[in-house]
Amino acid sequence: MQNLRIPGPTPCPPETLNELSRQMINHRGPEFAEMQGRIMERLKLFFRTENEVYVYTTSGTGVMEAAIVNTLSEGDKVLSVSIGEFGDRFGDIAEAFGATVKRLKFEPGTQADPRIIAENLEPDTAAVLLTHNETSTGVTNDVAAIGKAIRAVNPDALYIVDAVSSLGCLPFATDAWGVDVAMTASQKGFMIPPGLGFITLSPRAWAGYERSNMRKYYMDIGKAKRYSELGQTPFTPAVSLYYGLDMALDMMYEEGLEQTNARHHAVADYTRGRIKALGLKLLAEGPQASDSVTSVVVPEGVDGKQLLAILNKEHDTVLAAGQGKLAGKIFRIGHMGIVDTKDIDAAVEALAIVLEQLGYKKPAAVG
Amino acid sequence: MQNLRIPGPTPCPPETLNELSRQMINHRGPEFAEMQGRIMERLKLFFRTENEVYVYTTSGTGVMEAAIVNTLSEGDKVLSVSIGEFGDRFGDIAEAFGATVKRLKFEPGTQADPRIIAENLEPDTAAVLLTHNETSTGVTNDVAAIGKAIRAVNPDALYIVDAVSSLGCLPFATDAWGVDVAMTASQKGFMIPPGLGFITLSPRAWAGYERSNMRKYYMDIGKAKRYSELGQTPFTPAVSLYYGLDMALDMMYEEGLEQTNARHHAVADYTRGRIKALGLKLLAEGPQASDSVTSVVVPEGVDGKQLLAILNKEHDTVLAAGQGKLAGKIFRIGHMGIVDTKDIDAAVEALAIVLEQLGYKKPAAVG
Repeated sequence: MQNLRIPGPTPCPPETLNELSRQMINHRGPEFAEMQGRIMERLKLFFRTENEVYVYTTSGTGVMEAAIVNTLSEGDKVLSVSIGEFGDRFGDIAEAFGATVKRLKFEPGTQADPRIIAENLEPDTAAVLLTHNETSTGVTNDVAAIGKAIRAVNPDALYIVDAVSSLGCLPFATDAWGVDVAMTASQKGFMIPPGLGFITLSPRAWAGYERSNMRKYYMDIGKAKRYSELGQTPFTPAVSLYYGLDMALDMMYEEGLEQTNARHHAVADYTRGRIKALGLKLLAEGPQASDSVTSVVVPEGVDGKQLLAILNKEHDTVLAAGQGKLAGKIFRIGHMGIVDTKDIDAAVEALAIVLEQLGYKKPAAVG
Repeated sequence: MQNLRIPGPTPCPPETLNELSRQMINHRGPEFAEMQGRIMERLKLFFRTENEVYVYTTSGTGVMEAAIVNTLSEGDKVLSVSIGEFGDRFGDIAEAFGATVKRLKFEPGTQADPRIIAENLEPDTAAVLLTHNETSTGVTNDVAAIGKAIRAVNPDALYIVDAVSSLGCLPFATDAWGVDVAMTASQKGFMIPPGLGFITLSPRAWAGYERSNMRKYYMDIGKAKRYSELGQTPFTPAVSLYYGLDMALDMMYEEGLEQTNARHHAVADYTRGRIKALGLKLLAEGPQASDSVTSVVVPEGVDGKQLLAILNKEHDTVLAAGQGKLAGKIFRIGHMGIVDTKDIDAAVEALAIVLEQLGYKKPAAVG
């Protein structure tokens, strides 16, 4: 079986995969209404929020767009904090829909500094956009600390956090951390295929919705709210993915949120240790290193593209390439969803073989 | 087994359902690229177009939005032709994104008149929005005749056609009928669950894209085009639905497009005959009556809501209620995707029993 070690889509357990093959039902009937009710109720637990969590039929980027267009207005001043590709994308979306975007970028491989964010806020900044876990670099931002820093200088700015590659894997506390809009997607921590996005709005964000004049239709969360009260979605939902999600939430509930987070941390720590034991360099170290995806610097003299191609072809092991400016400079190992140390062992062992094949020599100082 | 006779999601054959349970792959790897290539190539056959057909991870309404925001600009004059709920929705989307929308409505249960459409065109009308098959009323518009009428008076207007509940069921010829933008979704004629939308643009529509200033990001078809050339999608696709689609296209290719259309026509004719034999009235008669969904007038003295509830509860038969202004006045029988006359027999027999239970008496004049 293929060892799919990319940061989403992640391998799915047989329990959720089997659910996907169930026959269709009426998406405006009582059976769907019950399932949606169960799903929305449990998503609140995993978002750690008192507010409703809405499910969209879309990729993660779709709910990033929903976060922007539902809470902001054209011309709103937005501080877009970026530590990589997905941070940049969040700013791009805000700009595409007419916000006035100030970009605050941190060096790839490092996390955002709460003090610098606070310094860049203006009294009329309408929102701060932040990526919790930057999938392109394997770096996690301190959402709680940044939330405090924002609130200390600006009581009204919306705090909008992309939790696509974190929620369900890393600890995330929407309400306790003062997050106004949080969103994530189905194909990472939730152990089902891509196609669903989840989003929640605080009362402050709903006030933004009331004022919002940004263009929207499919992403309009007011429609999602109205229809959810009838046990429906405004537009035909990806029913089979709902079946899978219903099962995944059972499994996550059974493992327990803290246990799931602890398992991700342990597997990530193990991954970092095994990578370092090969003499390879991590892009990020310390508490900022992500517990859902690890970025590894491609060693000098090795062609990163060739490395991944051979791993795929000869070892049925799929790692992810670097994106954007990091293309060719790093590769990434996903460890989110159903994952344990055996998956990492298999990937690292294959990696060691191919690296040697490509002429890489472990530095004498290591192991 | 439940007899799901709503106009989408339609029951899926075991062949496509089984595909949905396959394990995830890298959506930026060679296996996905091959599958996407196969899918896009065959979608062109079913759209009967020389142009590329792009796949979005979204409900049908998402590709309706994509049709608008990619080809029009704010302030563009749009003629929105409506014969029901989905026609109204198309106009609503155009308005939400800043078009100046002129609404042309026809009586529910009738089709749009090409002559009246032509009369309502102005020299600077940028686009005509039309629903091929109005799911809410069971009426099919004559896309070819309307296309000719538009072109006779306005050589530049974009002809944008929602083929969500028709393409794959009813004959549809994008290029031959002069359609500039056509879109459909996965859960009707394509025999897989909801979650994917398909859209194609003519060269004239691509010229509209170049000019377009409407707000977009997730729906931006330029991104879809760029990534499709790499064998990818811009955003993580609903991989499991692609597996199902890959299989569905095989099955549709094997049956043959003309044969599929002929089967839908025969089943629809059979449905209309059996309904009339019960003494019930069809909302639409003649060539405008849809071959994918039949609307039946709720007979006097019968509570439509109660009728559908009993059918569901006691006969495991799911028909669709009327929508909008037709709520309670009609019910609808879906016959699209995998369907044959036995499915209709079962539904009509259950219907006859429940109608009698509710006090309905077949008029003496009938059979």
